[in-house]
Amino acid sequence: MSKDRSNLDNLRHSASHLLAAAVLQMWPDAKPTLGPPIENGFYYDFDFGKAKITEEDLPKIEEKMHEIAESWKGFEEEKVTAEKAKEYFKDNTYKTEMIKELADKKKDITFYKSGDFIDLCGGGHIDDPKDKLKHFKLLSIAGAYWRGDEKNKMLTRIYGTIFPAEKELSEYLENLEEAEKYNHRTLGKEMELFAIFPEIGPGLPVWLPKGYAMRRVLEDYMIKLERGFGYEHILSPHINKEDLFKTSGHLGFYDESMYAPIEIEDQKYYLKPMNCPAGMTVYKMKTRSYRDLPIKLGEFGTVYRFEKTGELHGLQRVRGFTQNDAHIFCTKEQLVDQIQEVIDMMLIFYKDLGFKKYKFVLALSDPEKEKYKFCGSREGWDWAENTLREVLKNNNLEFTEKVGDAAFYGPKIDVLAENVYGKSDAISTVQIDFNLPERFDLSFVNEKGENERPYVIHRALVGSFERFFAFLIEYYKGSFPVWFAPVQAKILPITDRNLKYAKGIMSELKDQDIRVELDDRSETLGNKIRQAQEEKVPYMLIVGDKEASSPEGFKPGGKNLVSVRLRSEKNLGQMDFGEFIDNLKKKVNEKSVDL
Amino acid sequence: MSKDRSNLDNLRHSASHLLAAAVLQMWPDAKPTLGPPIENGFYYDFDFGKAKITEEDLPKIEEKMHEIAESWKGFEEEKVTAEKAKEYFKDNTYKTEMIKELADKKKDITFYKSGDFIDLCGGGHIDDPKDKLKHFKLLSIAGAYWRGDEKNKMLTRIYGTIFPAEKELSEYLENLEEAEKYNHRTLGKEMELFAIFPEIGPGLPVWLPKGYAMRRVLEDYMIKLERGFGYEHILSPHINKEDLFKTSGHLGFYDESMYAPIEIEDQKYYLKPMNCPAGMTVYKMKTRSYRDLPIKLGEFGTVYRFEKTGELHGLQRVRGFTQNDAHIFCTKEQLVDQIQEVIDMMLIFYKDLGFKKYKFVLALSDPEKEKYKFCGSREGWDWAENTLREVLKNNNLEFTEKVGDAAFYGPKIDVLAENVYGKSDAISTVQIDFNLPERFDLSFVNEKGENERPYVIHRALVGSFERFFAFLIEYYKGSFPVWFAPVQAKILPITDRNLKYAKGIMSELKDQDIRVELDDRSETLGNKIRQAQEEKVPYMLIVGDKEASSPEGFKPGGKNLVSVRLRSEKNLGQMDFGEFIDNLKKKVNEKSVDL
Repeated sequence: MSKDRSNLDNLRHSASHLLAAAVLQMWPDAKPTLGPPIENGFYYDFDFGKAKITEEDLPKIEEKMHEIAESWKGFEEEKVTAEKAKEYFKDNTYKTEMIKELADKKKDITFYKSGDFIDLCGGGHIDDPKDKLKHFKLLSIAGAYWRGDEKNKMLTRIYGTIFPAEKELSEYLENLEEAEKYNHRTLGKEMELFAIFPEIGPGLPVWLPKGYAMRRVLEDYMIKLERGFGYEHILSPHINKEDLFKTSGHLGFYDESMYAPIEIEDQKYYLKPMNCPAGMTVYKMKTRSYRDLPIKLGEFGTVYRFEKTGELHGLQRVRGFTQNDAHIFCTKEQLVDQIQEVIDMMLIFYKDLGFKKYKFVLALSDPEKEKYKFCGSREGWDWAENTLREVLKNNNLEFTEKVGDAAFYGPKIDVLAENVYGKSDAISTVQIDFNLPERFDLSFVNEKGENERPYVIHRALVGSFERFFAFLIEYYKGSFPVWFAPVQAKILPITDRNLKYAKGIMSELKDQDIRVELDDRSETLGNKIRQAQEEKVPYMLIVGDKEASSPEGFKPGGKNLVSVRLRSEKNLGQMDFGEFIDNLKKKVNEKSVDL
Repeated sequence: MSKDRSNLDNLRHSASHLLAAAVLQMWPDAKPTLGPPIENGFYYDFDFGKAKITEEDLPKIEEKMHEIAESWKGFEEEKVTAEKAKEYFKDNTYKTEMIKELADKKKDITFYKSGDFIDLCGGGHIDDPKDKLKHFKLLSIAGAYWRGDEKNKMLTRIYGTIFPAEKELSEYLENLEEAEKYNHRTLGKEMELFAIFPEIGPGLPVWLPKGYAMRRVLEDYMIKLERGFGYEHILSPHINKEDLFKTSGHLGFYDESMYAPIEIEDQKYYLKPMNCPAGMTVYKMKTRSYRDLPIKLGEFGTVYRFEKTGELHGLQRVRGFTQNDAHIFCTKEQLVDQIQEVIDMMLIFYKDLGFKKYKFVLALSDPEKEKYKFCGSREGWDWAENTLREVLKNNNLEFTEKVGDAAFYGPKIDVLAENVYGKSDAISTVQIDFNLPERFDLSFVNEKGENERPYVIHRALVGSFERFFAFLIEYYKGSFPVWFAPVQAKILPITDRNLKYAKGIMSELKDQDIRVELDDRSETLGNKIRQAQEEKVPYMLIVGDKEASSPEGFKPGGKNLVSVRLRSEKNLGQMDFGEFIDNLKKKVNEKSVDL
């Protein structure tokens, strides 16, 4: 562990010592292993042997921690020999393993002592534990393999967090509670946007009607946006022949993410983990001229990639997902403009979605690493990386650079979004590929009539509709802007007498491509409003005797009224039905976040 | 073979004897096997041993057939004993096998002799071969397994056709040539609508940009139509757990159409051959009340079903295809209205598509057959079959009834469309299912508060987008109505000077969701028109100096002109650009077939 980390990390790491000390007093046979600080707190992994601990034990452990902290005046460092360290931890195989490794690498072995508690540790603590180890909370218990390897023993991980002040802690805990309420799994279930059924399979979400309606709006939006930029769209099958993945190289470098093959008439087929091989095949179907370039082939491509059951998480980590994928084939001279265009599209897209929580990361090669020698020359990498960097700079975009995070086949720009728990995941990407043009022997006829190799850009504005939806749900807490809300308006007849009129209103809205529902239950208006409010429907149309133009019901083109209520609980009062439609359409066209 | 078949069949069967006689004179070692009449002609299968024959041999065989026919005065029937028959055909294992079977079944064994040629045959010939076996043509050669079983030897099949008069023959041959020109595989390739790549896999079509653009229009159309009828849409994954298909019964009764499983963490998953199991799972996700019924869950579900390589055919017979699928859950009382509604939707759909070549088939159970005793009671079958029949009658729809063609789980109405070769294939279906509601133990709470089993209707207006497209392409010979044409308008600038203006026109059309292309090649206007004509683009917009409002180019909202030419070669002359857009939109809204 490094000594130059932040004070908050030192505080958290110190708290993990305190947690281990408390656990050892309560379960003397428990074996502590590792306890690092993490993004929002800390954890410590223990081997509890036969003892079972549950989340009900956490308050007791916290109590013990407070008690012990009183006696902790500081962390005393002591350099020890491997022999002494092994002797001290002779009953703890995990620590013994770590000591052996440190000794093998001829690194310093240090103990840190606070109160009666001694831990094998690289350092990174606070100076005055007694005063500072106060505002903490243990949060949860989870299983974790020793060193993250599933071949090893499953340990018990206790998560906690600590802050310098009580106010910060309680704010954090409140946010966490809020996040739980608005996390995409909770809201996705409550709002019936998607479901994951054990009968169908883990990591294989089903888009329920409301989720699919939203997805369809975003797909349509994307097609229009992309067509405006000269894209065309294809659709390729979900299984492809083995040879195609040999040509692409996926069966060499990506097979751990691929599922087992299906044999059909002595020929192996794989669920496609990426859409690229089919995209390359379409490019190759005819001779391409420099006059045709750039060619931009988009695909809503559903791919299947292996994830361990334990790593699956709602819509965020799944086994099958659909990308808003595209491959751009261009000349070297066109590359910078094409990257710029993708950035332009990203910014339009995020703006239209009202999406602000994202950041750019430039993922670069590490010239020292072997994997970056596999494709492309060093000059090629430098040029491509510089091209990406220049585009980001020219757009005055803030970005971080990550050396060694590039794909083996080329550098890329990733866009990360932050979820309700403050964690980031990639939502969009633009990548330069040195690999596939070679492997598929792509070419175009240049101005001199010679065959020339095109550049290939991989690009996904929505890297995964599933993951993107997880962010969208959390970002909007389910109160989606009207243009992509699953139900844009809900009609609430005051009595059954108004049903006929309500149905006329519904039919007219459907004709106008507005997503609408009718609450035809024999319930009070109050209950109907409450229900629509819970469903976060942007507009409620209340129709009673005063709104219905006549007892016969709705008259197309006639004078029809509706009383409009917003999900914000604001009442717009009675208005002309035609005017309401115009207003709604205006909000839709403007992609307005407000109603 | 039956003796009561039509004269045309007798003529064609007689011609197959003549073909065999000619082949035997030319290749004395060839073994004739079977030679029946078929829908548009006849064939005869031969084992040629080591000899190789090609389509270049066909004219020579025809010549020989004409020569032999001169000596054929009639077909003489002779009843023979099995011994005599075996002796005569002792060198022909195929005929020997047939003789043995006839003898085993104690059926008559008959020879038919015409000229010097004797064949084992059940009869069905014309009386005056010399005069009538004249107007024939051998068409093609194909491989065919003995008795259609791939475990048997591959034989050589020669296809031919014959008509009573030369005029009919030449008309048929002309139609055939026309059909070849407009068959969906030829046009699909020429127009770049779809492609099947050997690298990706046989039977796994890729939708190319123009095909996908059309598919997207039809999907959007279908969503709107279905939403109007109260449907909601889901999307389920392409692989489902093994247990789901055990529950549904697919792994018992449908596994021959399913591909081998994929194992993920010791759990088997199958590519879904049907969307029903996931649909049932979504129904079951919560308690349903009689007030919620009918529930109509639609899905553009892509399914994978096994077909032998030899049986694959363009988009008509594939291994992976997408259904415009839906499941309707309703009470017994609602069933007839729901079937009626599906018929209503079919008729709207075919009308909107301008589709007239279709026919209804009522597929019924055969009470004698074992498979119809597996699900549902006899009374249930009778009632359901009668319900379907009544709906067809009430709509004054012509239909044929096919006993024994029902699914084992319930009766159905299929809609068949005819392709350019005159063959029919199912495009839509509506089916009652006695099986899945039981197997998934579906229920709803009825008015008395009791659990009651719902009825399930399977329904697909587009049973397969792939197959439906094959019909559409052939039906319209590629000249699609403007509302779903892949490119609705193509802009043809007269000189490069007009490019800027042309791009302004294009951008405005894209903004208005019109699918448009720009021919920016430095070609003559004549060549550009020829190209657009070949691509069957409905509207060509010719823009030259006279159309451009000013040298600076297009002015949004300003006075902009275009010269409009139709693919029918009709010239509409110069018109206001806004007026052109209004006209085009009117044709789109009206789903007009004419421009």
